[in-house]
Formats: sequence, structure tokens, C-alpha cells
Amino acid sequence: MPQLRQDLVTQRWVAIATERAKRPSSFSRAAAVPVPPAATCPFCVGHESMTPPEVMAYRTPGSEPNTPGWEVRVVPNLYPAFGPADIEPIVSKEGPYETMTGVGIHEVLISSPSHADDFAQLSAGQTAKVVRAFVERYEAHRSNPAIRYMLIINNHGKEAGASLEHPHSQLFGIPLVPSALREELDGTRRYRAEHGGCAYCEILSTEQKEKVRVVAENDDFLTYAPFASRTPFETAILPKWHSARFEEMSAGQQVNFARALHDLTARIHTGLNDPPYNFYVHTAPVHSTDDVDYHWHLELLPKLSIAAGFELGTGLMINVATPEAAAEYLRAVDDNAHSAGASPTVH
Amino acid sequence: MPQLRQDLVTQRWVAIATERAKRPSSFSRAAAVPVPPAATCPFCVGHESMTPPEVMAYRTPGSEPNTPGWEVRVVPNLYPAFGPADIEPIVSKEGPYETMTGVGIHEVLISSPSHADDFAQLSAGQTAKVVRAFVERYEAHRSNPAIRYMLIINNHGKEAGASLEHPHSQLFGIPLVPSALREELDGTRRYRAEHGGCAYCEILSTEQKEKVRVVAENDDFLTYAPFASRTPFETAILPKWHSARFEEMSAGQQVNFARALHDLTARIHTGLNDPPYNFYVHTAPVHSTDDVDYHWHLELLPKLSIAAGFELGTGLMINVATPEAAAEYLRAVDDNAHSAGASPTVH
Repeated sequence: MPQLRQDLVTQRWVAIATERAKRPSSFSRAAAVPVPPAATCPFCVGHESMTPPEVMAYRTPGSEPNTPGWEVRVVPNLYPAFGPADIEPIVSKEGPYETMTGVGIHEVLISSPSHADDFAQLSAGQTAKVVRAFVERYEAHRSNPAIRYMLIINNHGKEAGASLEHPHSQLFGIPLVPSALREELDGTRRYRAEHGGCAYCEILSTEQKEKVRVVAENDDFLTYAPFASRTPFETAILPKWHSARFEEMSAGQQVNFARALHDLTARIHTGLNDPPYNFYVHTAPVHSTDDVDYHWHLELLPKLSIAAGFELGTGLMINVATPEAAAEYLRAVDDNAHSAGASPTVH
Repeated sequence: MPQLRQDLVTQRWVAIATERAKRPSSFSRAAAVPVPPAATCPFCVGHESMTPPEVMAYRTPGSEPNTPGWEVRVVPNLYPAFGPADIEPIVSKEGPYETMTGVGIHEVLISSPSHADDFAQLSAGQTAKVVRAFVERYEAHRSNPAIRYMLIINNHGKEAGASLEHPHSQLFGIPLVPSALREELDGTRRYRAEHGGCAYCEILSTEQKEKVRVVAENDDFLTYAPFASRTPFETAILPKWHSARFEEMSAGQQVNFARALHDLTARIHTGLNDPPYNFYVHTAPVHSTDDVDYHWHLELLPKLSIAAGFELGTGLMINVATPEAAAEYLRAVDDNAHSAGASPTVH
């Protein structure tokens, strides 16, 4: 089972993923792991036997599990970073150091039967099915007492950590509330105590008024470049209504969230020539009951710069593009150039 | 002047480095910046006019500033991320958001007149000169009231963010104490309050007793893989005496620090086939007077893995190598293979 370890000084946790462990010599520079081509891709239609058995799929009526006929397919990760989830985490000591068993879940959500489509090229309809699958898997695990936090992520491109090219997202369930969430939870509580409202609602109204950092919007969502963007073209999708939980979207809100996500990934793909990127959803911790202050959202970070010694040593990111310039650029990407196969067009 | 911006929710600062700003379209994937070869390298001997005038150099007696004859040379960064440092930082508001002027310093310490030597290949004697230059530049700026923190970093290899191949380190002076330091300062204070001692001294005695995470040691320094290593082959160099401040090393301790740093970079270079890496020194904030709890050290992170969606979204790193295996591997790198030009040998 993977092990979580806590730094004695900072109390920062790390996961030592023994299920994915490599021999030390495999880190030597020559030994890069090749990305499998479509012919040997375990996520391609017809290759269903190459993954663990599916835990959910949207299928043509009558098609059998683990055979072709699916539109979105969810399988356990073959090399889970966390798991299993049927036991409570055990905290123990190794000398002065604290450890925790790395219980949890790690699932793969395959976004399309087709190897070639990247997330930005999925149709809006297919993206809506992916979003529905996100919510359904979240619901499937949220009552598990071993899991304290659930995170949906997407890595696009090898430089952003995608080990398989075939478009897929991942769902993690982990036995603690991670520091990135604690900072946001503490921040929203502090903001309410000091200013009497929701910090994200304040961001929403400021950005709608100022307009300079807005990328796009629809009835339910605002897409913008955050004022304190950590990297060039960092963007976020924020619900226009105050809600702590991604998984409590209505069916109509899910469709508009899929539209916003499709629009943003297409602008990034078209405007920046298919760069690598990561996105993830920040929602309230699964078992928290006191989350009225929180406001869920999606954050997307294109991999256009490197966190080097300064950033690693300080935690202070140096961003060489202003969010105002990034937003202006992404706004100008031709709204008609978003559909699959359209040529990149920038005004 | 660069601008610091604070995130409304997390209070995390970022630096928007306008002096280094690029046009948004330059981030499009095709537009990678090439690393200049030796012939056009501004840090090579004979190219002194390609940098801003030097602020310090160790020179052959009688040689003129900004001409050949130097062994270590320090120049202002041509594209500073922070600066100038002759005015106090100004904090102001943009709507609900907080900003600060990015005053400070950003210097380049060129480690050798030779383009080809990387840090691991410098002689122990040359490394000692580099360490002496680190301390001297630190001393030159530490009384500046505009600077709240000073950080020495080294980026080796393009994938670790080095934009110039020629071996060099960088000194940053910034107008705030960054979050990575605040976490360590708070952590050492909490540890002393709870356990009555220094957390790093406890790590020192635990690692010396357990031995499994020790890479090397000399009279003054222990080199080890931290129990909660964030990345494969993360390593640290820790003084064996309790001291908050890097810059207060004696001349003899500087020599042993240079030996430890030379030994570690050579083990990484030889054992892992010259991987990219970052290292930085964590020392107490410049103007703090209450730093008895702190214990300075160097942290080195080889770039052998990618922080992807999970790590960015949680702050929880997944490490696919155990520090015990990494330390065992680095211990076994042939101690006699460290000198420049020796062939990589692993027992």
C-alpha cells in the first residue's frame, strides 16, 4: 500500500507511491519511458482487456461491459497512487516522523473511444458526457469514510505529465484534506470574517466589472485569468452562483460547465498551438459540513514555463506574462475556430 | 518595476516580472528560446562586455574589471525579476486585490570562466571560491532595509529552467519572507514548543543513527535524502552544528560546505547521468532577530519527474522512489569517480 509521510518541520505530506516504484537506476537520464502509440494504447476501443475491468461506462444499449460500444469508460488505475479504499487510514510513527497508509481510490475516466481527439477537440456533447461521468464517480465514492478529499484532474501532453496520449482524466480519493485546499478553505473563512462575504463572489463581481481578465462567460460560468496568476495563461472557471460543491450541479449547470470547459480548452489549443496543460477541480472536502464559505471552481495551468530554483525555494512563482495580456489574447481566439479540425485563427 | 500580486483567497504572492515580459503570442509552442552556444555565451571569458558591469570578481592581481583574468564573476541580471533595491517596497490596492512593488536584487554568480564545466565538474577548490562568493554577496546586501529575504539558487540543465548553459548561480533579494520559509520558520518554532529542541537537530541525530537515508558526511555537514522527499533523489545538506544563518559560516566551515556540495552534485551527475536539477539555500530572513529556532540548509531537487495535475491541485507530491533506495544508490556511486572527466561508476 502506498505510504504518506509528513515532513517533520513543515508538516507537509508527500505520497511515496510504492505501487508505482521504480528501480533507482531507472531514473538515469537515458531511461525515458516511451508513450505507447495507438496500436498498443490500453484506452483505445477494442483494447478493453488491457485495463482492469470497468467500474462504469456510458454504452450503446445491449453492449457488454469491457467490450466496444462505449462513449465514456471508467476503470481503476493499473498502477494506483492511492488504494485500497475499504479500510480506514492508519497513522503511525517511524522514529520522530509521522506516516499514514495511502488508502484511497485512483480511477481513470477515458473521455472518448478515439485515440486522436484531445480534450479540446471533443465535441461539446461529448464533453458534457465526460462532466456527467465526473459527477457520477464523485457521487459513487463520497460516502466512503476512508476518503477525506476527492480530486478530478486532467493532464494533457507529455510535458504536463500525461503518460498516455489517449484523452483521459483521473479521479483521486485521498485520506487527508491537502494543503492546497486547506489554504483556500482558510482563505475563504478569513475573507468572510474580515469582509462579510465570499472571496470568490467578490472576484466574480470584480472581474465582471473590470472585464480585463475575462476570457469568456456563459449563463452559469465565468472564465478568467486570475489577478495573481502563477503561470502564463493560468485560467479558472468559476460558477456564477455561490456553491461549495462541484458535485451538486444541476443537469443544466453541468451542460454549461461542459460548454465553458470545451470553450477554454479549445481557446488554449487554438491560441497556443496545442500546449501541454493540467486542469483540476477544487470542491469542498467530502465529509465537511461547515463549507458555506467555500466556492468550487476549476483551475487550468498551461505548461509554458518551468518552476526552477527560485520558485521551488520560495513558493513564490515568477510569471512572465500578465493575466491581462493573456486574457486579451485568449478572448481574441476566433470563437468559430473551436470545432474539431478547424484551423487556428487569432484576431 | 516588477509587481508582486497577492491572491485574494490564499494570500499567496506571485511576481509578475514585467522586465522579463513576453508577448502572449511568443508562448505558442513553436517559439522555444534556443540556449546560446559557447561562441555567443555572455558568461564566457572574453565576453565580459556582453553582461552589465561586474559588481564583484575574484581576479588575477592587476587584471582590470570587466576583462579576462577572473575565476568567479558576479554581475547584475540583465533581465532582473526583482529590482531596484534602493527604495522601500510600496503596498497598494487594485480593487480588492493587494499588490507590492517588486523591489530587490537579482545577481548572477558565474562559477567558472569555462563554458563546459558544470557545477559537478568544478574542482573542490573552485567550488570553495563559489561558496565564498555566495557569502560575500549575501553580506553585501544584508543590511539593505528594502530586502526581507535573500535566496541563492542554482538551475542546472534546460529542463530545470537554466536559460544559459554556462555554469552560474543566482542571488535574489526580495521584499517579503516567502511562504516556503514561513512554513519552515513556523515549523521549527512549533517543534521547539512541543518537543523542546530544534527539529533539524532531531533530523540530524535520527539520520546519523538510522543511516539508511545518509548519502555522505564530513566533519561539518550531513548529506541525506529527507524522510518525506518530494521527488526522486531529493537531497539536503545540513550543518552538524545548530545555526540559523548560512552567511555566518567560518572560513573552515565554508570549505567543508563546498566539499559537501561538490560531492553531492558529483554523485548526482555520475549516478544519474547528468540530470537537470535545482538547488537553493534556506537561511534565516535577513532582518529577523528571533531566529534561534531556525537551522539553515541546502535542498537539491533533481528534475526526474513532473508535477502534474494531482500535485498542482493538492500540493501533495507523489514520489515514485523511496528516499531509502535513493540514498543507498547515491552512497554507492564510486567516491573516486568524482573528479572532472572520470567515468561514471556505480557499485
